Amino acid sequence: MRNFDQFSITQAVLERIANAPDARTRQISEALVRHLHDFIREVRPTQQEREQGIAFLTDTGHMCTGTRQEFILLSDTLGVSMLVDAINHDHQKAVTESTVLGPFYVEGPPEMACGTDISGGLPGEPMYAWGTVTDPDGLPLRDVIVDVWHSDEDGYYDVQHEEDGTVARARFRTDDQGRFHFWSIKPAAYPIPHDGPVGKMLEAQGRHPWRPAHVHFMIDAPGYEKLVTHVFVAGDVYLDSDAVFGVKDSLICDFASHPPGTAPDGRTLDRSWCEFTYDFRLGPASRAASRAA
Amino acid sequence: MRNFDQFSITQAVLERIANAPDARTRQISEALVRHLHDFIREVRPTQQEREQGIAFLTDTGHMCTGTRQEFILLSDTLGVSMLVDAINHDHQKAVTESTVLGPFYVEGPPEMACGTDISGGLPGEPMYAWGTVTDPDGLPLRDVIVDVWHSDEDGYYDVQHEEDGTVARARFRTDDQGRFHFWSIKPAAYPIPHDGPVGKMLEAQGRHPWRPAHVHFMIDAPGYEKLVTHVFVAGDVYLDSDAVFGVKDSLICDFASHPPGTAPDGRTLDRSWCEFTYDFRLGPASRAASRAA
Repeated sequence: MRNFDQFSITQAVLERIANAPDARTRQISEALVRHLHDFIREVRPTQQEREQGIAFLTDTGHMCTGTRQEFILLSDTLGVSMLVDAINHDHQKAVTESTVLGPFYVEGPPEMACGTDISGGLPGEPMYAWGTVTDPDGLPLRDVIVDVWHSDEDGYYDVQHEEDGTVARARFRTDDQGRFHFWSIKPAAYPIPHDGPVGKMLEAQGRHPWRPAHVHFMIDAPGYEKLVTHVFVAGDVYLDSDAVFGVKDSLICDFASHPPGTAPDGRTLDRSWCEFTYDFRLGPASRAASRAA
Repeated sequence: MRNFDQFSITQAVLERIANAPDARTRQISEALVRHLHDFIREVRPTQQEREQGIAFLTDTGHMCTGTRQEFILLSDTLGVSMLVDAINHDHQKAVTESTVLGPFYVEGPPEMACGTDISGGLPGEPMYAWGTVTDPDGLPLRDVIVDVWHSDEDGYYDVQHEEDGTVARARFRTDDQGRFHFWSIKPAAYPIPHDGPVGKMLEAQGRHPWRPAHVHFMIDAPGYEKLVTHVFVAGDVYLDSDAVFGVKDSLICDFASHPPGTAPDGRTLDRSWCEFTYDFRLGPASRAASRAA
């Protein structure tokens, strides 16, 4: 175990981890070492480039706080998040497609009664959202938790603002017919936070940081696979160049505009408003469980 | 640019970075995406495992401070540092071999006159170190800076102690015959810092964190390639299982023990002491320059 060259070093590291007690840890570690060393041998970094790589990872770590997750941004922008998503969700036509969680989800959002306006008085076009949660056969799922979060009309999430307070973020429960509905404001396209290392990486790679406008949904029902997805606003200019590769046609929805007047739930609006509806179909939990086994 | 599966996502990311303005950035980015996606497709992580990976990188970043570089430890323990070293140093018999820099180098160590005792009064066996710096033909190189740093007898570097103060760390200059000499204490084998994420990784991989005892040298002479290396203490129990894969036979040196008495420089010792000598041969700078071109 001495005098390694650029080929024997890989075997030496693999031998060192061959006795990892947990088989899955051993499998992941061995694959990581092989692919990482292959990458290094292909690009042949100088010592200075290695130092730049160390500094990039260190800066990325230092950028992470309770409300900013720069490594998720890195995973998202390198296509890793959507790759893991694709591996874990063989597309079935009968089940709603998934997409990235993103870095802005906050555990334990406040539960609200259906129909609540969650915009917290933010400026923007009022948005009425409604839909259902069903099983793959279209049978309604009642009393199911529906988490919702989205950006404001400037493209920012509540956690990106210094002021305290939960805005444009809530949890609803479906009724006996599997229905939910709420009011908020229409979200805008936005650049992912690009004032940190990932922003510098995107710039160096000649890429823009924008995501098309969308509303996040996370729906978790006992006995069904947890669904993490978005509903995208049809017509957005960034649908074909999402910085995190998250767009799927089946998730694009018309956000229909309406003149001032009375909305379906009886609310009267003195200005134009928009509306979208989506019916979410959850797959059985056994799919996820069998993959994990 | 929508609806990617686990294979088309890779091509989509590659297309997105195809216009990176700098060719080297493009080359490194493309290789990173290909190898990273291959790794993901091989291990097929669950969403939970992806989250564990994000958390590991985040914890590693948060562990980094001005005196603790956890990502260098990660690079070292995964064999990446020695792989990059091997790529950048085709072994030539006439030139001293290099090894890892490690995380404990501090820029701008204090310059001392040759012969100084840099132990700062630390307990331990006195160590007399002497040697020369020459070109590949053995011609002495005068007025060359020799940086030295090493652990104390408990295996800790000065920067790992809370107290201020530079100990067992200094810079010397070679004399007209390319010679240097100094006093310190004999370093001990030590575990790399393993109270952080990298320590947890090593434990999960069934590995110990120990490095064999060594003295670090960095020698930088105009017109010559900078040498970063160690001198290892012969007989150390960890020479064949260095946690960072840094041992080379040509860098192992006998640290000869002597009874109390007078040392070669006239110093009188009332207890036993040890001595090692090493002749460092620097390669021409053109090797490094031509590789970088």
